[in-house]
Amino acid sequence: MTATRATPRTPALPAGYVWEATSEQVAARYGLPVESIARFDLNTSPSPPELAARILAAGRFDGPVSEYPPSDYRRLVEAAAERYGVGTDELLVGAGADEILDLVAKAFLPAGGTAVIPTPTYAMYRVLTDQRAATAVTVPRRPAADGWALDGPAVRASARKADLVWLCSPNNPTALPEPDGSIAALLDDLARDAVSDDRPAPVVVLDEAYAEFVGTSLVGLREVYPRLVVVRTVSKAYALAGLRVGFAVAVRETLAAIEPYRPPGSVAITSVAVVTAALRDPAVLDANLARVERERARLADGLTAAGWSVGPSVTNFLLVDFGTRAAAERVAEGLLRRGLVPRTFGRSHTLAGSLRLTVRDEREDDRLIAAAHELAAEAAR
Amino acid sequence: MTATRATPRTPALPAGYVWEATSEQVAARYGLPVESIARFDLNTSPSPPELAARILAAGRFDGPVSEYPPSDYRRLVEAAAERYGVGTDELLVGAGADEILDLVAKAFLPAGGTAVIPTPTYAMYRVLTDQRAATAVTVPRRPAADGWALDGPAVRASARKADLVWLCSPNNPTALPEPDGSIAALLDDLARDAVSDDRPAPVVVLDEAYAEFVGTSLVGLREVYPRLVVVRTVSKAYALAGLRVGFAVAVRETLAAIEPYRPPGSVAITSVAVVTAALRDPAVLDANLARVERERARLADGLTAAGWSVGPSVTNFLLVDFGTRAAAERVAEGLLRRGLVPRTFGRSHTLAGSLRLTVRDEREDDRLIAAAHELAAEAAR
Repeated sequence: MTATRATPRTPALPAGYVWEATSEQVAARYGLPVESIARFDLNTSPSPPELAARILAAGRFDGPVSEYPPSDYRRLVEAAAERYGVGTDELLVGAGADEILDLVAKAFLPAGGTAVIPTPTYAMYRVLTDQRAATAVTVPRRPAADGWALDGPAVRASARKADLVWLCSPNNPTALPEPDGSIAALLDDLARDAVSDDRPAPVVVLDEAYAEFVGTSLVGLREVYPRLVVVRTVSKAYALAGLRVGFAVAVRETLAAIEPYRPPGSVAITSVAVVTAALRDPAVLDANLARVERERARLADGLTAAGWSVGPSVTNFLLVDFGTRAAAERVAEGLLRRGLVPRTFGRSHTLAGSLRLTVRDEREDDRLIAAAHELAAEAAR
Repeated sequence: MTATRATPRTPALPAGYVWEATSEQVAARYGLPVESIARFDLNTSPSPPELAARILAAGRFDGPVSEYPPSDYRRLVEAAAERYGVGTDELLVGAGADEILDLVAKAFLPAGGTAVIPTPTYAMYRVLTDQRAATAVTVPRRPAADGWALDGPAVRASARKADLVWLCSPNNPTALPEPDGSIAALLDDLARDAVSDDRPAPVVVLDEAYAEFVGTSLVGLREVYPRLVVVRTVSKAYALAGLRVGFAVAVRETLAAIEPYRPPGSVAITSVAVVTAALRDPAVLDANLARVERERARLADGLTAAGWSVGPSVTNFLLVDFGTRAAAERVAEGLLRRGLVPRTFGRSHTLAGSLRLTVRDEREDDRLIAAAHELAAEAAR
C-alpha cells in the first residue's frame, strides 16, 4: 500500500507513516461525490477477476467462516508453488506482501542491525527498518537517464556490514526493472564479500510485486544465493489487493528461519479460496496483463500529448516528471479537484517534482488525460 | 489460534511454535474420512452467522476486491466502537486478536525488555515475548480450587520492573474470569508502584477474547489506568474466526503509540464488510451465546456422567482434568481415533494431565459424549 513517511509522533517512536486518504476523505475535502473519486495512487486494478464474485457467492471455502483457515494453507501453497515454479516447502503465506516484509524483518533484522535501501523505492522498507530499531543506510539510485538502476558498487559497499538489503524490481515508484544481470551480479559480490569477511552474507529481500508485468522473475537465483527472499503478491497483476495475500519464496533453510514468526492464520479463509483459484487460472492473469499493456500505452500517449513528461514503465503505473515540486503540487491539486487521486511524494523526496499515476481502465484513464490537457492549458495561460 | 510451544529450530531463533494439525493431517494419520473430523481444539463455533453468506454473495464491500480496504476501516471502526461502548478514536483494527497482540508487543515491549505472564494462559503471549527478544517472567496462577485466579501480589512484584503484563480474562485455557475487582485492584497497585518508583507504569494487555460469554468487559478501566490495552475479537462469540478481525481498545494516547505499527490493510475487504454487519446485528451474538450456554451445560453434564472431571466454565470450552499426563494422553489418543480433536498441552505444562474441549453443536457434542462413555468403559476394564 502507499506509505508516506511522517515525522515521529513522540521521540520514543520510530518515524510513523500516514496512510493515503480514503476516497471518502478526498470527496469531503474537495466537495465531490464519493463515486466520482478515481484512485490513481494505489497501483491497484479497477476491477477484480470475475471468479472472485463467483467463489465468494458459492461459499465453498476450506471450511465455514466460523473456523480458522487451515494452519498450513495447503491448497493455496500448492497453487502458488506451482504458479511460481518452486517447491511447496519453499513458499510461505502472509496477509499481503506487507506482512511478508514484516516477517522477514523480524527474522533477519535485529534491533541495532543495519539495512541497506536503494532509494527512491517502496516506503515500507524504511518504515519496517525503523520499527525494528535498526539503522537504514540509503543508497541513491542512478538517475532517471540510467533507468533509476541501483548503484551496484555503492550498494555492495554499504552491504558489507549490513544484515539485510531491500531490493524491488521492477522498482516502485520508478516503474523499471533492474538491468539484466545486475541483481545476480550484486548477489554474487555479496556472497564473495561474506566469504572474505568471514561473516554470513546479508539477507537480500527482492520484492517482485510487479514482476508479472515484465513476465520474468528471479526466484531461480535462490539456489545460487540461499540468503535471497523473493516477495510475491496477488495485489497487483492478479487484481486482488483487497484480499490481502502475499508470499515469501526462499530455499528451505532460509524459509525455516522466517517460519517461527509466521502467525498461523492472518489470511481470511475467504481470501484463501479466491486466491487459490486465481493462481490456478491462467486467464485471470492474462486478462489483467492485456488490459494494463493496452491502457498503459494509451494513457502514456494521452498524457504525453498533453505535454507531460511520462517516464518509461514496465508496470501498471507511470512516473511523470513535472520538473519542480511546485509544479507537481499544482498538478496534484488540479487532479484532486477533479476527484483524481495521484501519488505524491514528500517535500524532501528525490521525486518531489514527480507524480505516480496508476494505469486504470479506459473510462478513468480518459478522465485523467482530459484533466492533463486542461491543466496544461491552465499552466500555459 | 492454538499454539503449542516447540523446541527452538536453531539456537539463534526464539522458541518457535507448532500449529495445530489440520483436519486433513488428522484424517490421514488416523485413516478417517476428513468430513468425520470434529475440531474440539480451536474454541471456534461450528457454524457462522447466516448474514456472512448473504453479504459475501451480494458482493457489496467498501470497494471491489481489486482495491485495498479503506486505510481507516471507518465503517468497521464505527460499528466496533459502538458495540464496545468506546470512542472511534479509542479503537484499532487488526487481522485477528493475534495481530493486535503483535502490534502491542512492537509498541511496548522493546528488545531486552520484560513481560509478566500469569500461567497457564494463551501460549501466544510467550511466543510474542520471545520474538521480541524480551524476557518472559511467568507467575503461576492459584490452583484450580481457587478458580485459577491470578496471584495478584506475585504479579505485582514481578511487574515492578516489567514493560508489559499479559492478562487474559476469562482466561484460556482455564475457562474462568478473574475474580471481581481483582484486575482493577492490580491496575491500581501497578499505578501506585510506578509513582513511587518514578517510572512509567507497565502496559497491561487484557485479552478479552471470551468476554462476551460472561457479558462483562473491563474496557471502562482504560480511563482509570491509561496504560491498559483491551483486546477484543470476533473469532469466538461472533463465530467469525475465519475472517481474521480483532481490535485493540485503549485511551487515545496509548492507541497513538500503537498506531505507527499498524499496517494499513491487513484485513481483507470482504472481512471488513461481514464483521461490520455482524457487530451491528445483536441477533448474531445472541444466537451464538444461547447455543453455547445450552450446549455447554449439556456437554458438561454428559462428560461428567461418563465420569470425567469437568471444570467450571464461563466460556465456549471446557477444561477436563484426567489426573495424570498418561491418562490425558490415553484419552486424547482415544478421541483422535474417533476423529475428535482435543487440545492437549505440552509434557511439562501445568495442565499436562488435562484436555481442553470446545463446546460445539449438538451432533458433534453427542459424538464426544459417546466417546467419553466408551473410553471410560475401556479404562475401567
